[in-house]
Amino acid sequence: MIQTDILIIGAGPTGLFAVFEAGLLQLKCHIIDALPQPGGQLAEIYPKKPIYDIPGFPEVLAGDLVDNLMEQIEPFQPGFTLGERAETIEKQEDGSFIVTTSEGTRHQAPVVAIAGGLGSFEPRKPLLKNLDEYEGKGLTYMIRDPEIYRGKQVVIAGGGDSALDWSIFLADIASSVTLVHRRNEFRGALDSVEKVRELKNKGRIRLITPAEVVRLEGSGKLEAVVVRRSAEPAGDTRIETDAFIPLFGLSPKLGPIANWGLEIEKNAIRVDNTLDYQTNIPGIYAIGDVNTYPGKLKLILCGFHEATLMCQSAYQRIHPDKRYVMKYTTVGGVQGFDGSKKEAPKAVIRSID
Amino acid sequence: MIQTDILIIGAGPTGLFAVFEAGLLQLKCHIIDALPQPGGQLAEIYPKKPIYDIPGFPEVLAGDLVDNLMEQIEPFQPGFTLGERAETIEKQEDGSFIVTTSEGTRHQAPVVAIAGGLGSFEPRKPLLKNLDEYEGKGLTYMIRDPEIYRGKQVVIAGGGDSALDWSIFLADIASSVTLVHRRNEFRGALDSVEKVRELKNKGRIRLITPAEVVRLEGSGKLEAVVVRRSAEPAGDTRIETDAFIPLFGLSPKLGPIANWGLEIEKNAIRVDNTLDYQTNIPGIYAIGDVNTYPGKLKLILCGFHEATLMCQSAYQRIHPDKRYVMKYTTVGGVQGFDGSKKEAPKAVIRSID
Ligand SMILES: Cc1cc2nc3c(=O)[nH]c(=O)nc-3n(C[C@H](O)[C@H](O)[C@H](O)COP(=O)(O)OP(=O)(O)OC[C@H]3O[C@@H](n4cnc5c(N)ncnc54)[C@H](O)[C@@H]3O)c2cc1C
Ligand SMILES: Cc1cc2nc3c(=O)[nH]c(=O)nc-3n(C[C@H](O)[C@H](O)[C@H](O)COP(=O)(O)OP(=O)(O)OC[C@H]3O[C@@H](n4cnc5c(N)ncnc54)[C@H](O)[C@@H]3O)c2cc1C
Repeated sequence: MIQTDILIIGAGPTGLFAVFEAGLLQLKCHIIDALPQPGGQLAEIYPKKPIYDIPGFPEVLAGDLVDNLMEQIEPFQPGFTLGERAETIEKQEDGSFIVTTSEGTRHQAPVVAIAGGLGSFEPRKPLLKNLDEYEGKGLTYMIRDPEIYRGKQVVIAGGGDSALDWSIFLADIASSVTLVHRRNEFRGALDSVEKVRELKNKGRIRLITPAEVVRLEGSGKLEAVVVRRSAEPAGDTRIETDAFIPLFGLSPKLGPIANWGLEIEKNAIRVDNTLDYQTNIPGIYAIGDVNTYPGKLKLILCGFHEATLMCQSAYQRIHPDKRYVMKYTTVGGVQGFDGSKKEAPKAVIRSID
Repeated sequence: MIQTDILIIGAGPTGLFAVFEAGLLQLKCHIIDALPQPGGQLAEIYPKKPIYDIPGFPEVLAGDLVDNLMEQIEPFQPGFTLGERAETIEKQEDGSFIVTTSEGTRHQAPVVAIAGGLGSFEPRKPLLKNLDEYEGKGLTYMIRDPEIYRGKQVVIAGGGDSALDWSIFLADIASSVTLVHRRNEFRGALDSVEKVRELKNKGRIRLITPAEVVRLEGSGKLEAVVVRRSAEPAGDTRIETDAFIPLFGLSPKLGPIANWGLEIEKNAIRVDNTLDYQTNIPGIYAIGDVNTYPGKLKLILCGFHEATLMCQSAYQRIHPDKRYVMKYTTVGGVQGFDGSKKEAPKAVIRSID
């Protein structure tokens, strides 16, 4: 069982910054996210797009903002359970909570901060009959560890950045990569499109367009897919493969959290914005895009503020006997759990003679 | 009379970022600050110190954060009334407000946002009897435009960064610079101390320590100061001068705003944090360090959030008939009043053949 002070659900910008503010208060955090990487919407939907309204950044790429936040929280060494969805929560006798994921990983903490954004990102699945027969047995919708495809035959479907980028990446690792897309046009960064063209010409990626995977075959595990081309020469081709990875994008679903007994309003969790962004269940907070209150704006900078106030309240809950006196980071520095210490240089006093 | 949509009092980080959020809503801003430069506490108290808790910046110098904010708001071309203190506010028949400064400059706007931090920075004055006789007539506590000292004789008093930095700067402009400090030790950045030593050795700065200015002389305007050295050879020296500039630091005072009929609590303005950070007077908001509410933290990142929510409410007030639909900057871009447009590059659609 993973134990921590604040269990954060969601590794978007809000959840990440909460680790920093908690760290300043000497509270440890652990983050669960359904995605294999941190960053939430910024990493999953628009990593290469510039954001203009992060205070102090006239322009910053979403992916860079995530990298910066990861660097900022590093001294506080948060734990991560990635690629797993938080499914259930149980309140314990001692007031703490146990949260269990889709893979059965259990986490215990006195405070839970839901920073779940628009919800956990769930893959858009192809419309094929026998999907569940092969899920986890050759069929997967998200690449967690590309190493498992080393020396394997892989079929990828999709026409966006993920399909392009993973085809390029796996071309180096897998024994064969086939990319299937239902149109001739791809929607992605120019350099990715060029790179796929190059690998196709070198015979490292087999490209089939316009086409769709129409059938999965195999007994016990996936052994082949049938691809149907819709333009001349039209027709079905059976392709032997170890893996089929449809990358049709992920869409967020509030999902299991909706059944945790929290007050839900407009698909978001109602919180007390007059004080600390706590939900109707004491000890459970909701911060960032996932919460709602009068005047709520779903903006990154608002999540930062909410995370900060939440941590103060969490501190009081965890240490009801202690009184925390806030110190500016400029004055008190940042004391990382990894032993590192950041501090402003002291003013110099010198005489002139 | 200066007319604008939102009149902001205070050019600290909160006031500056409010210009950006207002600009996204196509609202114009004008800022009044008692200091001659923007940046509030960051520029006045700790421009060269690193801050560690600005989200997305593992470390940023306070002065650099101010520069970044100035760059971020540039497309929205705010007006500035600097070096003047907002003194009085009068509500007009049409619901708008007129704010008048210490120098008599008048500003009119339907919305006033007080981002006054800990108050307007007021100089710490030397304990001399006839100060008011010479204020503005050779005696000044803040340097607004160094050019007025070209070819003049200047006496500076103080032992911190301001006294050191201005002595260095004016050594190039003034006909003579005398620096008086009551100790031998200076409290400032190492390179400033070294530079003053160098200029002293070159005869470009006359240094008198440990010493104090004990008398001001002149009829109608300042003509000389009397400096008393407290170590051997002790005694008084009369120095003819055009200007005496004691730089003993500035300390913030809530000042005249305290008499505007606003609800004051713990030396701060009470606001409605459940919605939009409005004060008890509709149309007047208070954001950043200057406000208070349950759980308030005097942090820069909180001011950013408050400024953002305030602008939404101000928009409703100014355009009661319009409904504003928020667009992400990543999606809608930033349309500056200077005609500039920032926009995310569009995703590329390409076919591979
Ligand atoms: C195209 C686009 C452009 C945008 N542009 C801007 C902009 O310019 N400025 C701006 O301020 N905002 C912008 N936004 C909004 C911004 O991305 C969100 O406000 C921000 O991502 C919210 O952060 P968050 O951490 O609250 O949630 P998210 O970023 O949504 O992260 C939530 C995370 O929680 C995880 N999660 C949820 N439920 C579970 C569960 N049960 N188990 C495990 N994990 C779970 C999700 O997988 C996700 O990774 C934009 C959004 C989009 C889509
Ligand atoms: C040494 C030090 C270290 C700090 N470190 C940190 C840190 O690490 N992290 C952090 O988040 N915060 C830190 N802070 C606090 C941070 O500086 C403040 O939260 C921030 O400056 C508040 O911004 P503001 O814009 O609300 O007000 P301010 O920065 O105080 O600006 C207010 C401005 O309003 C002007 N003003 C007020 N009244 C009037 C008037 N009547 N007429 C004209 N002008 C007026 C003032 O002159 C001033 O320029 C620190 C503060 C200090 C002193």
